[in-house]
Amino acid sequence: MIISMRLHASREEVDAVCERIQESGYKVHTIQGEERVVIGAVGVGDVTQCLESLQVMPGVENAVRISAPYKFVSREFQPARSKIRVNGVELGGDRFVVMAGPCSVESEKQIMETAEAIASAGGNVLRGGAFKPRTSPYDFQGMELEGLKLLRKAKEAIGLPIITEVMSDGDIGMVAEYADILQIGARNMQNFALLKSLGRCGRPILLKRGMSSTIKELLMSAEYIVAHGNPNVILCERGIRTFETATRNTCDISAIPVLNELTHLPVVLDPSHAAGKRSLVPPLARAGVAIGADGLIIEVHPCPEKAVSDGAQSLTIPQFRAMMQDLRPLVELWNASRAAQAVAIA
Amino acid sequence: MIISMRLHASREEVDAVCERIQESGYKVHTIQGEERVVIGAVGVGDVTQCLESLQVMPGVENAVRISAPYKFVSREFQPARSKIRVNGVELGGDRFVVMAGPCSVESEKQIMETAEAIASAGGNVLRGGAFKPRTSPYDFQGMELEGLKLLRKAKEAIGLPIITEVMSDGDIGMVAEYADILQIGARNMQNFALLKSLGRCGRPILLKRGMSSTIKELLMSAEYIVAHGNPNVILCERGIRTFETATRNTCDISAIPVLNELTHLPVVLDPSHAAGKRSLVPPLARAGVAIGADGLIIEVHPCPEKAVSDGAQSLTIPQFRAMMQDLRPLVELWNASRAAQAVAIA
Amino acid sequence: MIISMRLHASREEVDAVCERIQESGYKVHTIQGEERVVIGAVGVGDVTQCLESLQVMPGVENAVRISAPYKFVSREFQPARSKIRVNGVELGGDRFVVMAGPCSVESEKQIMETAEAIASAGGNVLRGGAFKPRTSPYDFQGMELEGLKLLRKAKEAIGLPIITEVMSDGDIGMVAEYADILQIGARNMQNFALLKSLGRCGRPILLKRGMSSTIKELLMSAEYIVAHGNPNVILCERGIRTFETATRNTCDISAIPVLNELTHLPVVLDPSHAAGKRSLVPPLARAGVAIGADGLIIEVHPCPEKAVSDGAQSLTIPQFRAMMQDLRPLVELWNASRAAQAVAIA
Amino acid sequence: MIISMRLHASREEVDAVCERIQESGYKVHTIQGEERVVIGAVGVGDVTQCLESLQVMPGVENAVRISAPYKFVSREFQPARSKIRVNGVELGGDRFVVMAGPCSVESEKQIMETAEAIASAGGNVLRGGAFKPRTSPYDFQGMELEGLKLLRKAKEAIGLPIITEVMSDGDIGMVAEYADILQIGARNMQNFALLKSLGRCGRPILLKRGMSSTIKELLMSAEYIVAHGNPNVILCERGIRTFETATRNTCDISAIPVLNELTHLPVVLDPSHAAGKRSLVPPLARAGVAIGADGLIIEVHPCPEKAVSDGAQSLTIPQFRAMMQDLRPLVELWNASRAAQAVAIA
Repeated sequence: MIISMRLHASREEVDAVCERIQESGYKVHTIQGEERVVIGAVGVGDVTQCLESLQVMPGVENAVRISAPYKFVSREFQPARSKIRVNGVELGGDRFVVMAGPCSVESEKQIMETAEAIASAGGNVLRGGAFKPRTSPYDFQGMELEGLKLLRKAKEAIGLPIITEVMSDGDIGMVAEYADILQIGARNMQNFALLKSLGRCGRPILLKRGMSSTIKELLMSAEYIVAHGNPNVILCERGIRTFETATRNTCDISAIPVLNELTHLPVVLDPSHAAGKRSLVPPLARAGVAIGADGLIIEVHPCPEKAVSDGAQSLTIPQFRAMMQDLRPLVELWNASRAAQAVAIA
Repeated sequence: MIISMRLHASREEVDAVCERIQESGYKVHTIQGEERVVIGAVGVGDVTQCLESLQVMPGVENAVRISAPYKFVSREFQPARSKIRVNGVELGGDRFVVMAGPCSVESEKQIMETAEAIASAGGNVLRGGAFKPRTSPYDFQGMELEGLKLLRKAKEAIGLPIITEVMSDGDIGMVAEYADILQIGARNMQNFALLKSLGRCGRPILLKRGMSSTIKELLMSAEYIVAHGNPNVILCERGIRTFETATRNTCDISAIPVLNELTHLPVVLDPSHAAGKRSLVPPLARAGVAIGADGLIIEVHPCPEKAVSDGAQSLTIPQFRAMMQDLRPLVELWNASRAAQAVAIA
Repeated sequence: MIISMRLHASREEVDAVCERIQESGYKVHTIQGEERVVIGAVGVGDVTQCLESLQVMPGVENAVRISAPYKFVSREFQPARSKIRVNGVELGGDRFVVMAGPCSVESEKQIMETAEAIASAGGNVLRGGAFKPRTSPYDFQGMELEGLKLLRKAKEAIGLPIITEVMSDGDIGMVAEYADILQIGARNMQNFALLKSLGRCGRPILLKRGMSSTIKELLMSAEYIVAHGNPNVILCERGIRTFETATRNTCDISAIPVLNELTHLPVVLDPSHAAGKRSLVPPLARAGVAIGADGLIIEVHPCPEKAVSDGAQSLTIPQFRAMMQDLRPLVELWNASRAAQAVAIA
Repeated sequence: MIISMRLHASREEVDAVCERIQESGYKVHTIQGEERVVIGAVGVGDVTQCLESLQVMPGVENAVRISAPYKFVSREFQPARSKIRVNGVELGGDRFVVMAGPCSVESEKQIMETAEAIASAGGNVLRGGAFKPRTSPYDFQGMELEGLKLLRKAKEAIGLPIITEVMSDGDIGMVAEYADILQIGARNMQNFALLKSLGRCGRPILLKRGMSSTIKELLMSAEYIVAHGNPNVILCERGIRTFETATRNTCDISAIPVLNELTHLPVVLDPSHAAGKRSLVPPLARAGVAIGADGLIIEVHPCPEKAVSDGAQSLTIPQFRAMMQDLRPLVELWNASRAAQAVAIA
């Protein structure tokens, strides 16, 4: 921690601050500047609590933390990229990954038809919601257990691993029985009770960034899961909330290279929720591959006009096929670049 | 719903839209404008789903909902202000209410000392957290059950009703046994599993606005609780997330009169979280009374420098006393104005 | 400046940073922490440039400025509140000030009728736009010189001093001939060419906060004007841009106490632009008085339904009168509190 | 315009609204819904003013505009992409364009060395600031006329056309004498006096999006320039202001496909200002090419550690070369795709 004192802080104020720092287990290091005193706290102590109390002590201008607040998820802790394997698919590895499927599981016909189309177009994982977080209590809330069973059926028939959302710690056991990857929605990114339970669950987790969460907070939520025992976390940028209304959310595409600098965890992009509008999904998907995401998660529906949710941002099956075709040369560049990196490291 | 077609939408596109609207149960009403066709959907139907699919049909420029998405919480449904009574205190009534106490319950001595000070300064409800949502898994997570027991002890000794946070639907039963009002934190405002369970709980709920939630979303979350059976919801503005960094959050003070126009539910202001800094709490509290909030919720700690959480924004006991004194003439104006309104209505 | 090095920064990287700091005229002070090296730069030097280059030197985690970037406008430079006198009205003094009038000057009849109503209701300054910044090139752009002449006529007849907007440095001379206070709109807060010219102008300036400017940037823009020779700057909070759409802007009411801590300049609130909706203006005005603003600036129009601009947020004359009546007890509390402060200082 | 009335609006309120609409020159079209009346205004009239006054008439819930507020810049007005030619370079054409150079012109040596490096690496236009908008009055404000002369010298020696910023309408004549493209900075996007003057200037304009401006506002500012006589406007996404602090701004990459749908004007990406950090520039540049921008504008400096401004986000010359190499396959895909589109149209 670095504490800068006000311009005319008194001797007593400086002393009180030093004392408070020492109480928290740190050593004190004082710099007497031209205009003001700056104090460094060196060592290991109870940083959050100490910081907060310093911020309001008399004579203190400002107190900031220097060390990163997360550990296990940081590149400093583990420099090499994490690879998360699930049923023959590897996230963070040397092949770009595409997850796709409908927002909600609606019927056997719908999920089967979509799964088949996704597999045949080159998709790697099937997404589909059985538990749906909806802003309105009057909107469709998902098929729940029945939806999970349809997902399993699709998996057995088509062979794609399944990703689906879990919204409550009470449901983790049931969902984990059917799903290969558990998805945590943006609104639950700081549902700490849920995060702790996920730490004790054996499945990989795809953690979506909250719509007004900072990158640092996303990493802290991942740290919750890892610190409670589950190292298999995939991060997902899905757009943040800003003043712009031309898109449903603002796709913070820079989050991908920023995360690649800060963490070893895989990062995927969800262009469907970021844009909220079908026609913007393919260009955003191209940007996601080019900027170095590890994969995409895309909403696809055999008949978006009839979808019970997210119809506006779902691709039709022919549109998904066209997008996969369009992405091919970019994905080849991506694969070649990862292969080159692997050689460089080896 | 109103659907505006693009400038050169074809006859077929207009017809397809009309057909889709009718499928959802609405009657169609077409306006042929100078430049484009606008279509009104009249009646009752499945609005969310229909709206989403219309938004991406060929030839559609824009499709918007006209009716409010919430019902029970609206002023149109219930014009008269809701009054929520809890242990002799009334929210939304004719007396201004002050809830205060520490961020976290830390010890018997701490909570007793604070409770006594709050009561003697004129506070009406004791707040204190036993379950704490913390950004970092390494920070203090609350005393849990033991904290609830200390709150009950303080209530028995001092007589103030208790408000405390619940973070998980699994804990509602236990927390409701000890608390008079259950508080839902900003990060859980769209934890829909939790909201549904709160609908089945007999206690009044204080629902904090999510840090990037719109006023409409706050009302939708309140609608969840009410629609699931619990009409006793108190709304709380606690600051939203913006680009400004001089304060922890940006206090959206306008939310109070906006909510007073839209809903009959009581609205309180939390200046402590909005500001994040002790010195700003008393001026924001004054603004909250003057603008017509039904009450305040304030963090107070006997020794903020030693607080395990939120020390920077907690008032000391003497500061709380000074603030209550400072607020007195404003609260008298508030009480007089509510009394006058009551007479005017009668 | 404080520079924190990365976890495993090399000896050479630390040395290069120290050298760069010394080149900019600072002395170096190194703290060897448990995990990393932190370096303090002490003295006087070219801070902006040095900071930027340090931020990207190898091994640097983070480099932050400690001293405030503004000087003349800070409380540290001048602890006592600035009082700005203009034609018998004092801003920052012991009487609360209300400026009011139409968004645009539209006709002699309109401005005369409004001026009279404002004066008789207790308003202190007449506002009215002759040069209008409009988002669309097709909207009314103001009466320009003719509008200024009508403002002077109103001043001569009614006696209220005039505040009006200037949008271009070429117009300052002309506008300053007619106006007592020059208003700088939110969109011009960082029009640096304009700010420099205002420094050489003899009139007080009301500087509106940009709609996405931080409080620090507002102070930097005020510093521009003061550093170029004009100390008479009044700051104005008028709402910031956020994700919330229920109001035209989000009134950052906390900016008022924050500015009162940081600067000696007077601060006024513009509830009309903050809210964008007539019914919210009186409650926001109450909050502005209660929180300690030095004054208000309010849009009033004899017939808002016919206004060429900002009709939706303009009060009618009877509404303005009612608001002034409603504010009276709050303004009396305000005046008493300022009088008490004056005694306390004397 | 579409006006929706409140639930229980009276007959008189509906009539008054209809009358007001007719006064503005529109025909009225009423829809009697299940719950409320909705009114369409058909024809041509004074939309902004009418809309504002309707919004506050008694009984009105909501009044929205249907037609786009801009005309000349819209795809509906001109479906084919605009191509802007300047000294052998074409923006919006069939070759991807890279503009690059230092933030500020600092010396002959600096600008010559950079220009040469940019040309040899395949850059197409030289950027360099002679007039600098700086947040602080104490920071370097640019070499002004002397800087312009150095830019011309570089142009004569190396052959690249020049883009440089103009900050004040008084300077347009002088800057236009030296520059091939005039750049308008984010802080001046709504400097309407400047925009009008640019309409009368013979040079192409690169208009940067304001840091909290919506895409619609950007198009309205472009409309100002075009409506005042200058059709050669290039739009530039350079990041918007959000709550995220890991990057200097948030790169709103979706703005590029959104603009490509709405306007025929060329759109370029400025990854340097969007990111604010050198290491993020190459990945963002890749995303910009992949998503379909017409070009990039990049900050490059021979010695960023010594740059007087924006050192942190400037690439070194070797980094720029490496980036150009890295972009090559993506640019080839881009060029091929544009060529294919040209064939498809022909």
